[in-house]
Amino acid sequence: MNRQATGKGMVEWDGALWLSDPEDRFGFRANWKVNRILYRETSAFQEVAVVETDGFGKALVLDGIVQTTERDAFIYNEMITHIPLATHPHPEQVCLIGGGDCGAAGEAVKYPSVERVDMVEIDPKVVEVSLTHLPEISGGDPNPRIRFHYEDGAAFVERQESQYDVIAVDSSDPVGPAAVLFEKPFYRAVHRALKEDGMMVCQSESPVFHPDVMKRVHDSLRELFPFVRTYLATVPTYPGGIWSFTLASKQVDPMASVVGERLQDRDTRYVNRDVLEGCFKLPVYVKKLLDLKK
Amino acid sequence: MNRQATGKGMVEWDGALWLSDPEDRFGFRANWKVNRILYRETSAFQEVAVVETDGFGKALVLDGIVQTTERDAFIYNEMITHIPLATHPHPEQVCLIGGGDCGAAGEAVKYPSVERVDMVEIDPKVVEVSLTHLPEISGGDPNPRIRFHYEDGAAFVERQESQYDVIAVDSSDPVGPAAVLFEKPFYRAVHRALKEDGMMVCQSESPVFHPDVMKRVHDSLRELFPFVRTYLATVPTYPGGIWSFTLASKQVDPMASVVGERLQDRDTRYVNRDVLEGCFKLPVYVKKLLDLKK
Repeated sequence: MNRQATGKGMVEWDGALWLSDPEDRFGFRANWKVNRILYRETSAFQEVAVVETDGFGKALVLDGIVQTTERDAFIYNEMITHIPLATHPHPEQVCLIGGGDCGAAGEAVKYPSVERVDMVEIDPKVVEVSLTHLPEISGGDPNPRIRFHYEDGAAFVERQESQYDVIAVDSSDPVGPAAVLFEKPFYRAVHRALKEDGMMVCQSESPVFHPDVMKRVHDSLRELFPFVRTYLATVPTYPGGIWSFTLASKQVDPMASVVGERLQDRDTRYVNRDVLEGCFKLPVYVKKLLDLKK
Repeated sequence: MNRQATGKGMVEWDGALWLSDPEDRFGFRANWKVNRILYRETSAFQEVAVVETDGFGKALVLDGIVQTTERDAFIYNEMITHIPLATHPHPEQVCLIGGGDCGAAGEAVKYPSVERVDMVEIDPKVVEVSLTHLPEISGGDPNPRIRFHYEDGAAFVERQESQYDVIAVDSSDPVGPAAVLFEKPFYRAVHRALKEDGMMVCQSESPVFHPDVMKRVHDSLRELFPFVRTYLATVPTYPGGIWSFTLASKQVDPMASVVGERLQDRDTRYVNRDVLEGCFKLPVYVKKLLDLKK
């Protein structure tokens, strides 16, 4: 997930350097101690940095905000790819919007049926830095089935029609440039870009810190797709830990399609059959937020 | 959960007062903005405070460390009680060690079969303050089936034999006085205090921040009980969110006993049948940590 800066970056505290991630609407700040700055440069879009944190390994930091860390990147990257790819009956053409750290793309190509992954990332510098400085997350040299498209995700999707089996939207928070990726016109374009049995998935923020966003994504997608299913994972470096993804499908109910046989989990570190089944099981407060039956 | 102070309490930052929860071993600090201190007094055991946080409602703070908040106390309290009480075939006699905020006791008495809850809390001040200042968590006036015992939990359990159907250990972190509650002699006493088909559950810390503790609890209990099952929940105010509980049972496999019919979830806010089933489904990294099959 690429997250937007909200004004805070690194701070000095107790004689050390800390990355500070503010959720000021809820008076919450998470802080990670930084041992070293390994890379820092300003691209055409943002400040791109790689730092060595004290406890979570290397971290990708955009405009001062932690995007992903060596220690827990695998959770998010596996969850946004394996859940749709293991529930879609025959994923061949995949599109990833965002996800410049290349971790999700690396998971997608574990599916032998996947012929091509179009990775659409607006900032080439994020990809370059991740491939060079974060091989632990990006996997280093990209698989030849991954094609990079350096442009705005919404503009790219707008041009496609019945192209993709799975589209995964690995977006920033819905502020600034990524805001359009949470709006109905974009979802309509994604719907059109999917084949007749296609699925999309998007990160849909935290049920604790951004319940309004999560609900809006769910409701917007229900206007377009017959099957909309929210699933959860806990990513320790995201505020509050709990994070949601929303899967929307044109023909197949992903929850009914959880059979596990298609899951490529030989070398996963988070997703297994248990997670594939369990992630759709939502606690009461999340169901209530989405107006689902208890 | 009662958590021990590790030297940090409230700090001044950006012109505001913050509660700072340090996991310094991992260079991580979570901070909650405090609007007002509603109560603060030193008991025979610790500094007991109730504060109004900016985003998580009122919080119980012991020796400067956030124990539980109005916003998410329900998650922990429901998970440590409903999972054993809904999987035990006929829970009547229940013992809670710790849990002075009284939230877990309030959940336990939702089970009509439960005749008595012995609540063993070392610090009467925590109970008094929770009943008076935190009715949102404690429920206010305690149910007459709850009996309070103000003494050391380990000493109390040591005196019991074949008394309880369910014993829930709602302990502090394994430092200072609560350390004994994570050791084999205590578990042996709990085993002896349980009836022949009894179950115990304990909070077993975070798989991310305290994997060593979680593994040791699991391994120690496996030496004593035929069925040991770890389950997970995400408590947003705990560091990293993800939190583990370990259930150990003398006769009934709690995972095989998940039928849902006994679950008293009419007015729960977290636990439902989905959670009861899903909480035992562990991701790869947690299974690996516990040496379980993927």
